[in-house]
Amino acid sequence: MALTMYPLVLTISVATAVTAISSPHPLDPLSPREITAATSAVSASPLVLPSRSTITFHYVDLDEPEKPDVLSNDNTNTTTLRRHTFVIARAGGLTHEFQVDVTNPSSPSVISHDIHLGPGFPMFTKEEQIAAQALPPKYPPFVESMRRRGVDTWFNLSLIAISIIPFIAGSKPWVDMQDVVCRVLSMGWFGTVETRRVTKVQCFVVGATANFYARPIGGVTVVVDLERMVIVGYRDTGVSPVPKAEGTDYRAGKAGPPFNGELPAPGVVVQPEGKGVQIDGHVVRWANWEFHVGFDMRAGMVISVASVHDPDADQWRRVLYRGHVSEVFVPYMDPGEEFYFHTFLDAGEYGLGVEAVTLQPGADCPANAVYMDGYYAGADGKPVKTENVICIFERYAGDVSWRHTQIIRPSDEPISEVRTSVTLVVRIVVTVGNYDYMLDWEFMTDGSIKTAVGLSGILEMKATNYTHVDQIKEDARGTLVAENTVGVYHDHFITYHLDLNIDDTKNSFVKNNIVPKRNSGVRATGGAPTPRRSYWTVLPEFVNPNKTTEVGNQVGYRLVTVGATATSLLADDDFPQRRASYTKKQVWVTPYNKLEKWAPGLYAEQSTGDDNLAVWSKRNRRTKNEDIVMLYTVGLHHIPYQEDFPVMPTLRGAFELRPSNFFERNPLIRTAPPKNFSNCACSPRSR
Amino acid sequence: MALTMYPLVLTISVATAVTAISSPHPLDPLSPREITAATSAVSASPLVLPSRSTITFHYVDLDEPEKPDVLSNDNTNTTTLRRHTFVIARAGGLTHEFQVDVTNPSSPSVISHDIHLGPGFPMFTKEEQIAAQALPPKYPPFVESMRRRGVDTWFNLSLIAISIIPFIAGSKPWVDMQDVVCRVLSMGWFGTVETRRVTKVQCFVVGATANFYARPIGGVTVVVDLERMVIVGYRDTGVSPVPKAEGTDYRAGKAGPPFNGELPAPGVVVQPEGKGVQIDGHVVRWANWEFHVGFDMRAGMVISVASVHDPDADQWRRVLYRGHVSEVFVPYMDPGEEFYFHTFLDAGEYGLGVEAVTLQPGADCPANAVYMDGYYAGADGKPVKTENVICIFERYAGDVSWRHTQIIRPSDEPISEVRTSVTLVVRIVVTVGNYDYMLDWEFMTDGSIKTAVGLSGILEMKATNYTHVDQIKEDARGTLVAENTVGVYHDHFITYHLDLNIDDTKNSFVKNNIVPKRNSGVRATGGAPTPRRSYWTVLPEFVNPNKTTEVGNQVGYRLVTVGATATSLLADDDFPQRRASYTKKQVWVTPYNKLEKWAPGLYAEQSTGDDNLAVWSKRNRRTKNEDIVMLYTVGLHHIPYQEDFPVMPTLRGAFELRPSNFFERNPLIRTAPPKNFSNCACSPRSR
Repeated sequence: MALTMYPLVLTISVATAVTAISSPHPLDPLSPREITAATSAVSASPLVLPSRSTITFHYVDLDEPEKPDVLSNDNTNTTTLRRHTFVIARAGGLTHEFQVDVTNPSSPSVISHDIHLGPGFPMFTKEEQIAAQALPPKYPPFVESMRRRGVDTWFNLSLIAISIIPFIAGSKPWVDMQDVVCRVLSMGWFGTVETRRVTKVQCFVVGATANFYARPIGGVTVVVDLERMVIVGYRDTGVSPVPKAEGTDYRAGKAGPPFNGELPAPGVVVQPEGKGVQIDGHVVRWANWEFHVGFDMRAGMVISVASVHDPDADQWRRVLYRGHVSEVFVPYMDPGEEFYFHTFLDAGEYGLGVEAVTLQPGADCPANAVYMDGYYAGADGKPVKTENVICIFERYAGDVSWRHTQIIRPSDEPISEVRTSVTLVVRIVVTVGNYDYMLDWEFMTDGSIKTAVGLSGILEMKATNYTHVDQIKEDARGTLVAENTVGVYHDHFITYHLDLNIDDTKNSFVKNNIVPKRNSGVRATGGAPTPRRSYWTVLPEFVNPNKTTEVGNQVGYRLVTVGATATSLLADDDFPQRRASYTKKQVWVTPYNKLEKWAPGLYAEQSTGDDNLAVWSKRNRRTKNEDIVMLYTVGLHHIPYQEDFPVMPTLRGAFELRPSNFFERNPLIRTAPPKNFSNCACSPRSR
Repeated sequence: MALTMYPLVLTISVATAVTAISSPHPLDPLSPREITAATSAVSASPLVLPSRSTITFHYVDLDEPEKPDVLSNDNTNTTTLRRHTFVIARAGGLTHEFQVDVTNPSSPSVISHDIHLGPGFPMFTKEEQIAAQALPPKYPPFVESMRRRGVDTWFNLSLIAISIIPFIAGSKPWVDMQDVVCRVLSMGWFGTVETRRVTKVQCFVVGATANFYARPIGGVTVVVDLERMVIVGYRDTGVSPVPKAEGTDYRAGKAGPPFNGELPAPGVVVQPEGKGVQIDGHVVRWANWEFHVGFDMRAGMVISVASVHDPDADQWRRVLYRGHVSEVFVPYMDPGEEFYFHTFLDAGEYGLGVEAVTLQPGADCPANAVYMDGYYAGADGKPVKTENVICIFERYAGDVSWRHTQIIRPSDEPISEVRTSVTLVVRIVVTVGNYDYMLDWEFMTDGSIKTAVGLSGILEMKATNYTHVDQIKEDARGTLVAENTVGVYHDHFITYHLDLNIDDTKNSFVKNNIVPKRNSGVRATGGAPTPRRSYWTVLPEFVNPNKTTEVGNQVGYRLVTVGATATSLLADDDFPQRRASYTKKQVWVTPYNKLEKWAPGLYAEQSTGDDNLAVWSKRNRRTKNEDIVMLYTVGLHHIPYQEDFPVMPTLRGAFELRPSNFFERNPLIRTAPPKNFSNCACSPRSR
């Protein structure tokens, strides 16, 4: 499509105060003013539609400057780079893409416009989800279905008893329609390319509990056309029980009598010499690390241009150009009518930044945390602020970064050198419907970066007639976590986009194979004349000799998995697997391409898998001594247990990027032993 | 052999003050008085030898009471159970085993005596290691070897240059013999059953560094007969370079100029309401946990009778009867003459309790830690005290134990319920020669127990002529971590003995297989009439219905791996692998047998693998609905990197035992939100 410039002069009124950013950085997320400038420019563009009333904004993101330009401005003040945005909007039943120059937010200009014609749609807006969720309670067949469930004790009766309960017209519904809430569930893709943005809507009963996810209304399927905002499909397969409210609430004081056992004593981290972290706009400096923290509607948190200080060389060295969650694929394992389509792509369908929550100081993050706000574009193009959406804190977990005890000679005093481990955690928490993801990047003084996912929140549950395991005669597709409630089996595949940049843009991926070897006992054939019969050695598949240490080892970082290494078990030809076919492998290495940020493709909603990471990689592009990106998937098969009900204790998965012949030696070798402090005290403050 | 009682009356003088134990527990480790009583009784026993001067004590441990007797006295005061000890001593060239009743330490009685006639020997004593290490510097051929290496700048010359340096009789040795230190290295077993306790001794140059492990004297092999305490084998294959001292020291201020970059700000955990942990003798009570912490010469730390409080049932429920490290197998991957025998069994050869270090407050453990001392028997039978050998602290790492954010209706205030995670860490640090193992048991309020291993300390290094990777033409069996220094490839297999006791002594092991399934689309054949083509389900191999939750799920705990799942790659017929054949599988489940604590067998030193865990398990004993024990191995293949030199940043491996349908619901559901505290401050104290 056409690529033309549309200079505009706009009067912009920004509802939210612009945060003062002391040092602008080329990778800074869009400011509220830039968001408004971009969406206003698009709305005013004659290309879109004569009437601007029907345009909705689905994605507004920084259109990253070229990597060489960013790196030449690395973490320093710059006014030379232009600020571009990338905008996805729906208008006239089409998906429009725009690039808008917002370098001067007072006069933004649309510099390109394109229309997406292939399969897949942009992320849902929050506004359309709210509108769709309001439809069923006003839809007469749905009201009728609710009336048919109008016996408030029926869920203790057997299925036979339920089937003979007569429908009594005009009887008082067992539940007020005010107690019915609904949620938009993306419907995935199952072989038919939809030209309409349709979605399924699932309804629940709130009643006496906040935990409506524990009380699904089974048997009812609602399909909504999101653009016309009408119900276009409805089916009620019959009355099935709604699980009871009792024992499901998770609010303090609502979860039954207060816990009567012993609780851990409260503790607070005190930093006697103040915080060690300095934040300048979005640039974070801490200990031997410097990096940029961004925020994006889809990715959530983005870590960029991370460099580590080399204490021996006394220089800053690049490690990571850009790292963020690329996608979260969550397929459920019930092929039945109400659950088969539960195959979510949380980032591409809902947006991790959109669903990120305001963090609770002292609870989501410890007392010594500092916070950043986030802004994204609403459907109307106006900036939406999420306060305290990212927190940054120094972690003192009581661990040791290195130690050694030695008595050299029997008469000597023991040497005991110990260095404590202090790390910097950067955290965002994303609640996508029922699930809460705690997404941490942890920077370590030994040069490592650890990336961790904590999963909490609420299971997706299915209403069932079963009240006891003994009644289950066929596969329940999950665990009976409470009476009438099955926690459905599912997976979580959190795929990270890791644009590593070890000292230089050009890198190579090295797979070190550990290979068992037989010792022949004969030196001439490479063996050793000892009784040892076997050992292992390391055979790298390929290496890149661009840069080596003084003794000649290739400089690099290595990937260390920390649990959660599951890959998808779905059939290759199954529709959800085709969309997320990349989840069959844990590690992908691809050449850098600014357009390949999102593992399932740019348009994940109702995507068909024709434009995803696995497809791109079929091109067998060169990855040796190139600007490469690694995509790594943290994978968990989640078999629910009763402990996951009514709210889940945090499950964890992680991985670590660890320096590997990157430094000449342990970079912490010259650090001083820890100081001791005494006379520490706090005064309590009520909440 | 005979099993008779030998009542004795002894006058005992205990050098170390007996710690006042308020509530004795049947699993309490031996007190100094009990150690002395046991060894004195053995020394006085007419069965041993006419002359008691040659007896050496290698192992003195509590001989655990029978499990039913302990459980009937669970964590309560008791005076009913007798205190027995199990003693291994060497005398007259034989390995003797004794049981000694020390219920009344003033009149201990030997109640059994046996002689071990099979292969394998008990742990080395510290005393004999010190004596053996002192032999080479006084051994003329060794002194001659050192004189032949008498050029203090040779290590900068090439191999050719070294070979033509003439031996000048009477020239001053390049190194004072005071700078040579030696270490006992167990020699493993390679097909010949030794009837003598012989070992190899490796020597190093200290010189200007404390890090002598970085300066091995290559080419020299010393074999010592430990009972005659004489060198019985000596070989010098020629002069090879000793790596330089420069850059190897790890002592503060000795590791080069102080670190000039930014350091993390110091932080202290403050507990405004005091510590939450109560320690009564060896019984620890904290939050919803109660357990016993013991200490043993071989296992190091032992966790026993751990029970968790069920807040809904308001009762204490058993989880773990006894858990400890069973063995640490560390095979090196160089089959050459100087390294092939490096196949250590750290617990069975050296003793994790013997090698455990005094913990540094504020460094090994945070400021809020409390400590326990440990006692073990010296070779002379006298108790040896290690102060502050175990620490216990509440960890506030800034994590969340569960959370959920929810806006129920668009008009509602958001609900955000967050509970912080506080855990209790119980730690011991063991330095076996060059390696430091940080061994944590972490108790969590959600009912989980996490067991973690941190590895730091110093690599085992091999002297080499190489100064640059480009010179390496054949497999170096490791990484060139510095000039003339190869960090040799190796493994660590830390095997845990986990005598789980879920609610009852009789348990079953359930292997939940996740099985991919095809959806046929036909309901009659178990499919669903949807376009979904695949899913997975869970097929347990077997279950035990002794106890179920209210809705009928089997109560249990599950094993969650947290990285470090390597298994051994050595050939099955290789000698070290035969000794530690159990390291080919991560999980073993065996029926409880008090005599099967140690995975490689009771006598690990020079063991032949005829009496290890894999051998016991060949008997195919019943494990369903029995008193069973799980043995789980944390395994790491360690490829050294330059960052591991001269001292290693901590590497970690872990696993978690997590309640799985053990509770009716999330046990933390009724806990209150965290309190906030303000006005926290500390005053600094110089170290």
